[in-house]
Amino acid sequence: MRVPVVGMVGAGQLARMTAQAAIPLGVRLHVLAADPADSAAEAAAEVVLGAPDDPAGLAALAKGADVVTFDHELVEPALLEALERDGAVVRPGSDVIAVVIDKRRQREALARLGAPQPPHQVVADAAEVRTFAAAHGWPLVLKAARGGYDGRGVWVVADEAEAATVLAEAAARGVVLLAERMVALDCEIAVIVARRPSGEVAVYPAVQTVQRDGMLRELAYPAPIASSLADEARDLARRVAEGLGVVGVLAVELFVSGGALLVNELAARPHNSGHASIEGCVTSQFENHLRAVLDWPLGDPSPVVPAFALVNVVGPADGSDPAARTADALAVPGLHLHLYGKAAKPGRKLGHVTVVGDDVAQCLAAARRGAALLTGET
Amino acid sequence: MRVPVVGMVGAGQLARMTAQAAIPLGVRLHVLAADPADSAAEAAAEVVLGAPDDPAGLAALAKGADVVTFDHELVEPALLEALERDGAVVRPGSDVIAVVIDKRRQREALARLGAPQPPHQVVADAAEVRTFAAAHGWPLVLKAARGGYDGRGVWVVADEAEAATVLAEAAARGVVLLAERMVALDCEIAVIVARRPSGEVAVYPAVQTVQRDGMLRELAYPAPIASSLADEARDLARRVAEGLGVVGVLAVELFVSGGALLVNELAARPHNSGHASIEGCVTSQFENHLRAVLDWPLGDPSPVVPAFALVNVVGPADGSDPAARTADALAVPGLHLHLYGKAAKPGRKLGHVTVVGDDVAQCLAAARRGAALLTGET
Repeated sequence: MRVPVVGMVGAGQLARMTAQAAIPLGVRLHVLAADPADSAAEAAAEVVLGAPDDPAGLAALAKGADVVTFDHELVEPALLEALERDGAVVRPGSDVIAVVIDKRRQREALARLGAPQPPHQVVADAAEVRTFAAAHGWPLVLKAARGGYDGRGVWVVADEAEAATVLAEAAARGVVLLAERMVALDCEIAVIVARRPSGEVAVYPAVQTVQRDGMLRELAYPAPIASSLADEARDLARRVAEGLGVVGVLAVELFVSGGALLVNELAARPHNSGHASIEGCVTSQFENHLRAVLDWPLGDPSPVVPAFALVNVVGPADGSDPAARTADALAVPGLHLHLYGKAAKPGRKLGHVTVVGDDVAQCLAAARRGAALLTGET
Repeated sequence: MRVPVVGMVGAGQLARMTAQAAIPLGVRLHVLAADPADSAAEAAAEVVLGAPDDPAGLAALAKGADVVTFDHELVEPALLEALERDGAVVRPGSDVIAVVIDKRRQREALARLGAPQPPHQVVADAAEVRTFAAAHGWPLVLKAARGGYDGRGVWVVADEAEAATVLAEAAARGVVLLAERMVALDCEIAVIVARRPSGEVAVYPAVQTVQRDGMLRELAYPAPIASSLADEARDLARRVAEGLGVVGVLAVELFVSGGALLVNELAARPHNSGHASIEGCVTSQFENHLRAVLDWPLGDPSPVVPAFALVNVVGPADGSDPAARTADALAVPGLHLHLYGKAAKPGRKLGHVTVVGDDVAQCLAAARRGAALLTGET
C-alpha cells in the first residue's frame, strides 16, 4: 500500500509536533522548510527546502503529497490557488487561507456568521482613528490586517500621538490598519475545532489562555468560566469552522468580557492554545489535523483528565538555552517537556511544558515551576 | 548547546516509538538499521546502516552518540565490550546484555537473586530430557538459550519423540537447550521497570499479557489478579532490575500459577508489554528509557486512567496490508493507532492499537474491534 503523504507549508514547532503525530498513524509528513535547521526538519519524513512564497518550493511540496496543509498561514493565497488549479488538494483551501491571513477579512467573515466581536473599523488616517476613539475611548488597539503573529502587528495606543506613529509606519509599508475597542477582559479563552471535508467536526474543550506581550504564555483547563459559557464558546467555534468551511484545525481565540464572548481572532492550523491536547485529551490537535486533512474519521477531543495546564518556554533575557537545563525540569513530578529544537534567543518560543492532573491550580504551579527551571528564572 | 544523541542498535518498532519520544525531549535518536526500510528509519533523526553484528556499524553508531542502547538484544556481548573499551557509554552494559541474551544465564541470574522461577534445567540429550520429564511431567517446554523471540526458539513437546526432533536440530546448530516445566497458568503478567545509573527506579503497573503462538497479542490493565500480587510482582521486577544493574528499561514477564509468581523471561529494552504506557501512563516506557540511559530524572510511571487495553495488529493470512484499512479502524471511538511502517506479511507484527478508559473489558472490546477492522477479520 502507498503510504499517505501530507505536505506541510512551514517547518516550525507546529510541523514538528505534527510530525510526531504522523509516525503512529503511518503517515509521511513532508515539510517545506525555509532553513534545514527549522524546528520540524529533523522530525519530518522529508524536507523540501524553500520559502513559503516560493512557487517552485510549493509545487515541489504539492507534487510529492496527497494533500497540502499549513504550519502557518503566511502564504500568498494566489500561490495556493495556482496549486489548486494544477490539481493539488490544499486543506484548508486558498479561500479559507485568504480569510484567516487578513484580520480585516476575518472580521468581515465573522460578522457575516453573526459571531460576536469587539467593535472594530478599518482606519486610514488620524481623523478616522479620532472618530473611532470618540465612540470607543482610549486606549484602543490598532492591528495590521496582515503579517502579524505572537503580538507583532498589534499596538495598544494611548492617544492620538501614539496612534499617529503607528499610522505613519503602516502607511509607509502599505499596511491596512484595523482599530478595535480595548475590551475590558474577564479572561481570554480558546477553542480548537477539527473539521474534515465530510463535515464531521471535533470540538475541543475551552481553555483559558494567558497572554503576555501578545504571546500566549500559559493555558489552563478548565477555564475559570461557567460551563454554560464554555459550551457557548464551543458552539460558536463549531459554527465558525462550519461557516468558513475549514478543513483541518481551526483555533478560535475569544475574549470573555462582562460575562459575554467576543471573537478575538482565528488561525486555520494547529495552535499554541491546543498544545496541551497531546497529554490532556484523548486525541491531540495534531493527530486530528492530520486525520481531518486526510478525510479520516476524527478522534475524540474530550479531556482524559479533570485538569491540565501548559506554560510556554520562552528564551530568557540572558540568551541561555533552556535545553541545557532539561534534567532540572524533568525532576518536576508529572512534567511533560516539549522542546522545539530551535536556537535560543531572548523572547523566542523554544518549547512548552504540560502537566495534567485533578486540580488546575496544582497543574499550573507545577508547569510554572518546570518552565522556570528551564529558563533559569527560579 | 549540543543536542544529546542516543544511538540505538536496531531500527524496529521499538526504535520507531523511541524516536517519537525523543522529539519532544529535544534528543536526537540515531539508529543502526540493517535496512533503510526498517521501521524506525524514517522517524529517527539519523540512520547508520549496518547489521547489529557489524563492528564497523556499531562503532559508527557509538562515535556519533553520547550513549548506545538497544532496540533488541541480539548483539554479541563481545562486540559491546569492545565498544566499552573504546570509551563508548553502553546502557544497559555488555554485562547485562550477556545475561539477557541467554535464557540459561537469565535463569542463573534470577536464581542468584532469589526470584521464583519454573523448574528448569539445561538438557544435552534424550536421557536428560527423560529424567527432567520424570520429575516434572509431559508436556514440557524446550527453549533455545539464545536467538529466540516472539515464540521462535520455544517448543512445547508432548513426548520423547517430539523432544528428540528438537534435540537433533539444536545439536545440529550447536544451540544450548533448556527444559522447563509446563506451568499451569492462572494468567501471564508483565512489569516494566526503568532504572537510571544513579539508581533511581520507576516501576510500571503490572499488566496482563495474552500470548498466542508465543507472541504477545493483547494486554490489559488492571491485570485480573489481587492487588497484593500485583504489588509483589512490581517489587520483584524492581529487585531484578536492581540486582542485574540494568540501566534503561527492563521488561519482566511473569507467570501467575496457583496464585504465585514465577519469572518467565527478561528483556533489557522497551517491550511490547509496555506499549500501552504511551497513552495509559503519565510517562511512556520509551520516554523513560531515554531518560534512564541519559541519566536524567525518570518520569512518573503511574497510570493516568483506571483501565487500558492493547491489541497487536498482526499481518493477516491473506497478506493484505492493515494500513489500507486505517480509516475504518479510526472510526472506533477512542482508538489509538500505532502502525510500524513495516511491509505486510502474514503473522508479522505490524502495529498495535490501544484504548484507555474506565473499564478494562470495554477497553479490550474496543481495541479488539479496531485490530479486527485493520486486519479485515471482522
